[in-house]
Amino acid sequence: MAKKTIPFSKDQLEEIINEFGTPFHIYVEQDIRENARKLKQAFSWAPKFKEHFAVKATPNPYIMKILKEEGFGADCSSLSELILAEKVGIRGEEIVLSSNNTPAEEFQKAIELGAIINLDDISHIEYLEKWAGFPDLISFRYNPGPLRGGGNNFIGEPEEAKYGLTREQIFRAFQIMKEKGAKRFGLHTMVISNELDPNYFIETANMMFDLVIDIYERLNIRIEYVNLGGGIGIPYYPEEKKVDLDYVGEGIRRSYEEKISARGLGPITIAMESGRMITGPYGYLVARVVHKKEIYKNYVGLDACMANLMRPGMYGAYHHITVAGKEDWPLDHVYDVTGSLCENNDKFAIDRALPQIDIGDIVVIHDTGAHGHAMGFNYNGKLRSAELLLKPDGRVEMIRRAETLEDYFATLDFSRL
Amino acid sequence: MAKKTIPFSKDQLEEIINEFGTPFHIYVEQDIRENARKLKQAFSWAPKFKEHFAVKATPNPYIMKILKEEGFGADCSSLSELILAEKVGIRGEEIVLSSNNTPAEEFQKAIELGAIINLDDISHIEYLEKWAGFPDLISFRYNPGPLRGGGNNFIGEPEEAKYGLTREQIFRAFQIMKEKGAKRFGLHTMVISNELDPNYFIETANMMFDLVIDIYERLNIRIEYVNLGGGIGIPYYPEEKKVDLDYVGEGIRRSYEEKISARGLGPITIAMESGRMITGPYGYLVARVVHKKEIYKNYVGLDACMANLMRPGMYGAYHHITVAGKEDWPLDHVYDVTGSLCENNDKFAIDRALPQIDIGDIVVIHDTGAHGHAMGFNYNGKLRSAELLLKPDGRVEMIRRAETLEDYFATLDFSRL
Repeated sequence: MAKKTIPFSKDQLEEIINEFGTPFHIYVEQDIRENARKLKQAFSWAPKFKEHFAVKATPNPYIMKILKEEGFGADCSSLSELILAEKVGIRGEEIVLSSNNTPAEEFQKAIELGAIINLDDISHIEYLEKWAGFPDLISFRYNPGPLRGGGNNFIGEPEEAKYGLTREQIFRAFQIMKEKGAKRFGLHTMVISNELDPNYFIETANMMFDLVIDIYERLNIRIEYVNLGGGIGIPYYPEEKKVDLDYVGEGIRRSYEEKISARGLGPITIAMESGRMITGPYGYLVARVVHKKEIYKNYVGLDACMANLMRPGMYGAYHHITVAGKEDWPLDHVYDVTGSLCENNDKFAIDRALPQIDIGDIVVIHDTGAHGHAMGFNYNGKLRSAELLLKPDGRVEMIRRAETLEDYFATLDFSRL
Repeated sequence: MAKKTIPFSKDQLEEIINEFGTPFHIYVEQDIRENARKLKQAFSWAPKFKEHFAVKATPNPYIMKILKEEGFGADCSSLSELILAEKVGIRGEEIVLSSNNTPAEEFQKAIELGAIINLDDISHIEYLEKWAGFPDLISFRYNPGPLRGGGNNFIGEPEEAKYGLTREQIFRAFQIMKEKGAKRFGLHTMVISNELDPNYFIETANMMFDLVIDIYERLNIRIEYVNLGGGIGIPYYPEEKKVDLDYVGEGIRRSYEEKISARGLGPITIAMESGRMITGPYGYLVARVVHKKEIYKNYVGLDACMANLMRPGMYGAYHHITVAGKEDWPLDHVYDVTGSLCENNDKFAIDRALPQIDIGDIVVIHDTGAHGHAMGFNYNGKLRSAELLLKPDGRVEMIRRAETLEDYFATLDFSRL
């Protein structure tokens, strides 16, 4: 079994904690950059490749800036995320608005920024025209429904998913847009989340390139942008393997050659909107053990809670745990690792084999770089933590401060009590 | 089947929306007050009855103030909630700190406020003594474990719950506290959540009064405060029935007479820390239909989303839906009612029979008065809504403003970008 390790020594962590306290999320810049380069490398064959980072995964401008420097754009799903992209200097078609049940203000902001707009429904054509006007490059999200089974349990079967247009709607939508004078067209899909089977992504590309052909043949419309969505999983469990990006890239290259190049339908920009695989493995939630408890089971209580990381409580998701300085100790104890919410699902791990844990130990929860801090709430009056960045030169920068009580009370006016 | 109705006409809602926009949660003061009085009435036989409102359900000081006026105190589970109680003027033993995996600062604040402290673990005695000192009235949370089955799926089986002390630990804990000179003792349990069977609460009282007797007989310690926890459910489904509070109160009275009064072990304060049943049914999430979508299923898209109400997406919980002005229309359409998050579980209802819905319709989601706004997050950059209060005289007051983009960005410093 592969061993999951942390890129910090206990002493380093103690130093960081001395300055910033616990809990916090910390992201490792160098690892984020190297992984970004691997993704680009896997698609270096493409006439143009664009990863629009799914901002929702880690909506932090300093992370987005690193990714911008690596050539990535932004996949935004809300007004806040569009504004974040703007503040980071991500512009024009580096941005795709890939939203659903979209309010007018998001469309308006996307138009202002010159973003690609990816419509989730055929009815949005009229809505977009009425409220914001059309972008230069208009894209539609395809939901293959029963034509494509095998959705995993994060999104579910495609026909149960609220997203996208049916196959027949896709043709109607492009026809309508052509009649309205549109000149530049894109196609998008996202039918999977957190998937580790690399073949799935090649199949998705096959499906999309076939649709590009069909659209060309039926409507004489050339698609110039194919967004394969995100959904590349990460190995949360030690026994899981990373998706081989080179394998995925090569499979998609062969499909592109065979279906697109051979028919003279290129060049097409190959786009993705990955989030989890871009930052997920390179973030860690660091917390301190405050309490130990022995009742019907043995518990270890951290100073972090579900407010900092929702996935275990919300989905029962596995996040690996390392106890700093005890990396080589035998895993001969079994604990539930808990937060302090009055919710019994506020547990980072259940029945987890770990080394003996003592009060004061530093616990590092892996793979919190995506959908970690971003999903935090304030339930039970808990505050969300800071986010730190470990720079390539070893310095640590705070890239988001922790919430304070003032933040928590900001929307209340106590003066009329 | 009982019909679930809303206490507003469509015209009234349009007026409120004109002033405040959508979406919002609105709470009905008069209904909250009347329900509070019913609970007090059901326990009017008790030498002393105290409901500590579970602040986590609706941490809004204006709601807490209404409840204070009805004689309720506060059940706090965090520093933020203790401060809220303080700001509302809830003082001393009106407050119980009923927390778990508790940090020192919460104990310190509770001591400062003169609150009852309810310890979740035997190890917390030493921790409390070291960090904050002891309160006047010390209580322990009892977890009966396998001695009490039948936990429902919100908390799970008691022996799987992280909360409380085992039976043997309870005796040790009181013994230790007696040796440390404590004079006033309380006992607490909370083994259920959202339970509609009234007999469950009577059984809990039986269990607790038996334990009071055992503690007296083994340790010669008199318990003066028994907190039966919360957990009284509410009828989310139209076919469910409210818990008959008079029946519960009368059952607990008989148990108290038989076990406590008959042995001369009274007077004991009967306390509860209800949240859901206090405010849940008297709050509504009001939203506007923005989009309709027909693909493999029919969707209605609201301008509210999971950020405003997590329970359906998080637990698959049912919340009844009324379309304003269409209360008497036939329920001859089937919709998924969705928010706009890029999460397929961002649905308020799945396959729900509803009247025909049109864009612009006002949708009222029932029973959001507890664990509604309180659980909201900012995932996908979404903002949490305002909270409104419908006063007995018909006026509507904003008791929490909606979040703004400035709030969303408050913990970021863009200046170093």
